[in-house]
Amino acid sequence: MGAVVPAKQERSGLMVEARHVSTMPARQGTRIEICEVGPRDGFQIEKSFIPTGRKIEIVNGLIDAGLRKVQVTSFVSPRAVPQLADAAEVLAGVKRRPGTVLTALVPNARGAERAAETQLDVMGVFCSASETHSRKNVNASIDETLARFPAVVEIASAAGKRVQGDVATAFGCPFEGDVAPEQVVRIARFYRDLGIVDLNLGDTTGMATPTNVSALLAALRAAVPEMTVTLHFHNTRGVGLANVMVGLAEGVTRYDSSIGGLGGCPFAAGASGNICTEDLVYLLQESGYETGIDLDQLIDVARLTQTSLGRELPGQVMKAGPRLTRHGVDDVATAAG
Amino acid sequence: MGAVVPAKQERSGLMVEARHVSTMPARQGTRIEICEVGPRDGFQIEKSFIPTGRKIEIVNGLIDAGLRKVQVTSFVSPRAVPQLADAAEVLAGVKRRPGTVLTALVPNARGAERAAETQLDVMGVFCSASETHSRKNVNASIDETLARFPAVVEIASAAGKRVQGDVATAFGCPFEGDVAPEQVVRIARFYRDLGIVDLNLGDTTGMATPTNVSALLAALRAAVPEMTVTLHFHNTRGVGLANVMVGLAEGVTRYDSSIGGLGGCPFAAGASGNICTEDLVYLLQESGYETGIDLDQLIDVARLTQTSLGRELPGQVMKAGPRLTRHGVDDVATAAG
Repeated sequence: MGAVVPAKQERSGLMVEARHVSTMPARQGTRIEICEVGPRDGFQIEKSFIPTGRKIEIVNGLIDAGLRKVQVTSFVSPRAVPQLADAAEVLAGVKRRPGTVLTALVPNARGAERAAETQLDVMGVFCSASETHSRKNVNASIDETLARFPAVVEIASAAGKRVQGDVATAFGCPFEGDVAPEQVVRIARFYRDLGIVDLNLGDTTGMATPTNVSALLAALRAAVPEMTVTLHFHNTRGVGLANVMVGLAEGVTRYDSSIGGLGGCPFAAGASGNICTEDLVYLLQESGYETGIDLDQLIDVARLTQTSLGRELPGQVMKAGPRLTRHGVDDVATAAG
Repeated sequence: MGAVVPAKQERSGLMVEARHVSTMPARQGTRIEICEVGPRDGFQIEKSFIPTGRKIEIVNGLIDAGLRKVQVTSFVSPRAVPQLADAAEVLAGVKRRPGTVLTALVPNARGAERAAETQLDVMGVFCSASETHSRKNVNASIDETLARFPAVVEIASAAGKRVQGDVATAFGCPFEGDVAPEQVVRIARFYRDLGIVDLNLGDTTGMATPTNVSALLAALRAAVPEMTVTLHFHNTRGVGLANVMVGLAEGVTRYDSSIGGLGGCPFAAGASGNICTEDLVYLLQESGYETGIDLDQLIDVARLTQTSLGRELPGQVMKAGPRLTRHGVDDVATAAG
């Protein structure tokens, strides 16, 4: 874990004698890679089925806006997640651009066989760091779940596709509470030993905090320094982008997010889902990072998504517009302050 | 501005050779002072008048939950802001605890005379850093506005009250766009020369970003190092708490926020208002800072406020509950990932 510089901190604003470096760790222009996960993590919990054609339109809009990586769907059981039963059809309709990477979740060999037939680039295997969540989510223990993945890796390799390893409830479990870094490290090591390089840390129900993000990254840096981390935060408790700031300060350059802030939390009616892609892009661009994404086009896709779902999405930038949106002095009566 | 440590940054997660210090600048236990501004910044834009008794109930609930500073109201013209016409009555009903600080906005000598009669502790004068916003907001230029404040200081001093200096549109103006740090520094110097120590930087329409927060703090640190800064962020574009992370890394320990995320933006229907008090408290506590606030009690006040307004407020923690809220395994069917 990065050493916290002890500060001679006064209880005031400017009277700080020992200063800290900025939260912006990288030179202006560092490229941050965003993976759009709304079509999977968001659509899977919507009540009404989103027509396949509309899903394809949204995914293609995201790619046109500059997203280089999109988690398009999930090859889970259509009975368990009927919203994503059209996984193969959606993938067939996606128009990739040079450099586009298409991913989907794949829980087992059966899913891998379905996925192998498609233009998918990356199969994402996933396992909960919490035993209770694992049983609840996939009806199997952690060990039973992990035992399914060598076959997935074999099928993926034969089909010329990569595999990434996701860890759900990496920052806490809604049933068990805190999740120790060692629980995540154990799964990460298993992935590494299978030859997987990409490690995705899922904040499944929004329990990540600045403290446990730093602690988990430190543990992984020590245990599996050869792996590459993606942070997958939910905004369930409003601190998703604050956690991104921690990730950036810790040197992590890969983040998952969902268009419009799609998604939700099965335990909290009205709670936010994943961190919102256009708000994340806005934050990164305004902080001097490069994303390769056109924010205006992205906002258009967010609005299309919101219209398609027929409910208000939590994304903020699509409501307020980019920062330098100008208003005429007659637009409104302002209130003091 | 704090030097940005140049990082040898790879395009991957853990492969960072030159690491950065944590975004947490202070030792565990640093006290962060939160000023609740919802009763002023939030209530002033609600369409329906909130009954005076309910306002008092909410303010007293906030104080009971541990808020040490509350901006209770505004002594502006009741014609301009009818929602706060009951300023004196609300203040009369507030039950302070030892150490409670009550503040209100005061635009001019007339407001100061009304405020002087109350149990208020701090009068907040305010001036826009943008000429256009100033004329639109208070129908006066910046210089005309500042010229009203010596009289306020005199009245406050005679009444044994302090004065704080607020700068609106400190991070950008919805009419003019970017606001240069020098525009804010000019007003800060004027305040300082009047003997004001507390400087409040208002992000009136949510245009603060990590970059301009750091830049403005650097300019103020150089120009008026004897002043104490409070950061007043709005969450209009979703990055309010990310900006708090920047403020913390820059050593700022005072923040304004509003219960439930009350407030809004007159330019964007549906946009968020101030950063949300309970989400801020959650973030700070989970990052190891001390707030002196009981989060559970605060959530109760947020829910009361939401019920009182009859509309959904943007606060997240009140929907999801604190981090270790446990759920039974039969609560819901979870979806994979």
